[in-house]
Amino acid sequence: MDTPQFEPKDAAYAARVEASFALQGAMATLGASLAKIEPGRVVIELNWAASLTQQHGFLHAGIVATALDSACGYAGFTLMPADAGILTIEYKINLLAPAKGQRFRMVGQVIKPGRTVTVTEGRAYAIDESREKLIATMSATLMTIVGRADVKN
Amino acid sequence: MDTPQFEPKDAAYAARVEASFALQGAMATLGASLAKIEPGRVVIELNWAASLTQQHGFLHAGIVATALDSACGYAGFTLMPADAGILTIEYKINLLAPAKGQRFRMVGQVIKPGRTVTVTEGRAYAIDESREKLIATMSATLMTIVGRADVKN
Amino acid sequence: MDTPQFEPKDAAYAARVEASFALQGAMATLGASLAKIEPGRVVIELNWAASLTQQHGFLHAGIVATALDSACGYAGFTLMPADAGILTIEYKINLLAPAKGQRFRMVGQVIKPGRTVTVTEGRAYAIDESREKLIATMSATLMTIVGRADVKN
Amino acid sequence: MDTPQFEPKDAAYAARVEASFALQGAMATLGASLAKIEPGRVVIELNWAASLTQQHGFLHAGIVATALDSACGYAGFTLMPADAGILTIEYKINLLAPAKGQRFRMVGQVIKPGRTVTVTEGRAYAIDESREKLIATMSATLMTIVGRADVKN
Repeated sequence: MDTPQFEPKDAAYAARVEASFALQGAMATLGASLAKIEPGRVVIELNWAASLTQQHGFLHAGIVATALDSACGYAGFTLMPADAGILTIEYKINLLAPAKGQRFRMVGQVIKPGRTVTVTEGRAYAIDESREKLIATMSATLMTIVGRADVKN
Repeated sequence: MDTPQFEPKDAAYAARVEASFALQGAMATLGASLAKIEPGRVVIELNWAASLTQQHGFLHAGIVATALDSACGYAGFTLMPADAGILTIEYKINLLAPAKGQRFRMVGQVIKPGRTVTVTEGRAYAIDESREKLIATMSATLMTIVGRADVKN
Repeated sequence: MDTPQFEPKDAAYAARVEASFALQGAMATLGASLAKIEPGRVVIELNWAASLTQQHGFLHAGIVATALDSACGYAGFTLMPADAGILTIEYKINLLAPAKGQRFRMVGQVIKPGRTVTVTEGRAYAIDESREKLIATMSATLMTIVGRADVKN
Repeated sequence: MDTPQFEPKDAAYAARVEASFALQGAMATLGASLAKIEPGRVVIELNWAASLTQQHGFLHAGIVATALDSACGYAGFTLMPADAGILTIEYKINLLAPAKGQRFRMVGQVIKPGRTVTVTEGRAYAIDESREKLIATMSATLMTIVGRADVKN
């Protein structure tokens, strides 16, 4: 499928994503950073660390999902109005291969934006000696929240 | 549905779960501990921490999923043979309410064990002032791996 | 988990479900009927038929899902206001065993009702010589639609 | 993501898909036909019919899923050995828009083939006056079954 093109409702979408990302304690714990912010598309990267592993020394599936969920969520967030908050309704992840690698790249992409419900897809790649391998796919459903003081950005 | 009862193939199932859990760097990072290990059922608990949050200060959905995925995975692992390794094929999580609380309890339960594929369900509860609230449900599919040196336990 | 108890917003919930079900051409094609309608819980039953099979003669996974999706949807619908319409946002189904049987029972149960988003779970059972077997589990997310003429009931 | 290219293990993959499809009573009931069979990719098409609707007259979400599940399953089947059977382990579908249209096109695509487990993705399109609209996305996990007489093809 061709990647859809989207018009952001708020020109300051990238700054809003950066400010919100900086508030996520979990992203700091993962050593994750924002590598790209485009309308409807966000890329997050992180390095392998022993503190993020499952029992075989691979990245824990939940950690892959944590970064991928954030990539999908922020992809959706780029298209929301300036005063909106965002919550994840649900996501599903398929783990295609063990998360073996030195570095990981998580790509979140909006498939269908909506006033209330936005659907996104994510792809996780493991990077080893500059070879990139698809290790997981995600579909995530997001909800735009307006007018709730405790769920803003 | 009544909770199904299962016979473990390996009497040392609890020790195997504990040994594997101790190898998960991610569980230490989450401050998570094993609260219960029964045939086909595992409970993992953790405390709220700023290092595990999303932008509103709730537990990050991915962190809820990380602990819940481990609970489901180890629930399946209790029923596997002594020499088996385990990998998560996929999971889906529905986030029913923001993960607000002082402490969290993740329950993983086998629904259908299998020689190759095992299906489990998970429930995440937030605990606040001793009130418990269901905040997420998961379904996870696991694969039993035999004879692969890099995927043992 | 104990089955949650719910108060319907509209006392005529059962009549609304029956009227909507009667409009579903797909349910007639499946030979499906409403076996139980309770607040937050709906049971749909159907018989095996050659017209509903996959290549091994079992009920097609998609047909199991069609009836289960309707059971989950109507479970949610029992708790919605009188003027609401309902749409399925997403569902996931795990197929635990081949859908072999003479008759099938699909149970939809609300886990978390909401003003906009409702989360449900489903269980499909195959019935053979009066023995019942769990063959599939579903989680489905529903959306309450208000004020759209083309999506009422 | 670029569409991956695959080598079929069995040169007669298309004939195997056609023979298996012809055995699916459910596909005849849906009026569905095979529009394309390529290594790792299968397209199924069907027309709108009143017998396949939900209560608003749209195609029932379960019917969309039934055809999409078959497209994904047969996409996986094209890459399996000649003596293999196939079962769906699980799938998840996101319904992006009501299934309004005269005709529907379901595309199943293998993302990651495997000896035991194969992961696929599906896209459903509604066609109205030759305008095509993406209405649903699926991810489906398949299992290759070898040596079971009741699950062949």
